[in-house]
Amino acid sequence: MADHNALPLVILAEKFASLPGIGMKTAQRLAYHVMSMDEAAVEDFAKALVDAKKNVHSCKCCQNLTERDICPICDDAERDSSVICVVETPKDVTAFERTKEYNGVYHVLHGLLSPMDGITPDKLRVKELLARISKGGVKEVIMATNPTVEGDATAMYVAGLLKPLGLKVSRLAFGLPVGGILEYADEVTLFKALENRNDM
Amino acid sequence: MADHNALPLVILAEKFASLPGIGMKTAQRLAYHVMSMDEAAVEDFAKALVDAKKNVHSCKCCQNLTERDICPICDDAERDSSVICVVETPKDVTAFERTKEYNGVYHVLHGLLSPMDGITPDKLRVKELLARISKGGVKEVIMATNPTVEGDATAMYVAGLLKPLGLKVSRLAFGLPVGGILEYADEVTLFKALENRNDM
Repeated sequence: MADHNALPLVILAEKFASLPGIGMKTAQRLAYHVMSMDEAAVEDFAKALVDAKKNVHSCKCCQNLTERDICPICDDAERDSSVICVVETPKDVTAFERTKEYNGVYHVLHGLLSPMDGITPDKLRVKELLARISKGGVKEVIMATNPTVEGDATAMYVAGLLKPLGLKVSRLAFGLPVGGILEYADEVTLFKALENRNDM
Repeated sequence: MADHNALPLVILAEKFASLPGIGMKTAQRLAYHVMSMDEAAVEDFAKALVDAKKNVHSCKCCQNLTERDICPICDDAERDSSVICVVETPKDVTAFERTKEYNGVYHVLHGLLSPMDGITPDKLRVKELLARISKGGVKEVIMATNPTVEGDATAMYVAGLLKPLGLKVSRLAFGLPVGGILEYADEVTLFKALENRNDM
């Protein structure tokens, strides 16, 4: 914004613009919107920001984000703690929970291996996973990282650590997305779908 | 987010989702991003929200947003205070300032007439405009509201109040946008461009 604009508004717009996917135009629009909100609503928003950052941390068991010591999923006696689904982010946990079909527990790595970006195994929550497994009772680990180069590399790396421990290690199936159109599937996906075809 | 998510995160996502143009998916992504920020950066963000709301208010003269009593434009002795450009929002002031061609002052109405939505003249900063003009020294008022039904109605209404005072009241020109393609211009714009054609 030009220098005729009120400085606190410029600062607020810059804060919004620092968020991912929000450009300067949208940030200005949001800053102006804040001006039209009640003072109490703005203070609630500010409090929500600080509260989330202060009170939410990793679950001591699965590393998912929670405001408790142990997250509700790890704490749920009805869930099968012998199956661990390993994912990259807390968002992936939400995606699996939406299916309402998975009854095991999770482990959130908080990233994927990417040596070029300096993300080595010690930056991920891998040792927490090993510590968890060493306590016993785990039968299967499902590697549910994204089907990308980094996701595959991370799955391979973690699987390499777990297999010597005598665990069953599996990977999510690759194939056509349900409702997708064959014509638009890329070659690799189509090849995987062919390779992993099932009897009817 | 489902109930396995940390409550402070859900609350924060809802706050983001209450902003215009931000859906629940984006709001969740932003809430997760906040988790990855430094605690100091989150507190700065929260402070920027509250500061903007607390310290920014309407200029006593032109009603534009400012943290001072009188905004820098009204306060600038080099600007021609005999010409007032009447706009809907502070964003419109920014748009005019970007042209670097306008040397008059502004008046921000903070809305447009829309009786269906309950926005009657008393909800706009019209009486402040009249009070300003009654002090004398104003020669021309440029109605620079948007070329929409509400913008036109507001311009007509304000012009109707000002003309009896013996002021020159003008309206922004309608025509083809510079760099636009004639083929894609709508009929009304093209008609206006034809009607207001200039000698070469």
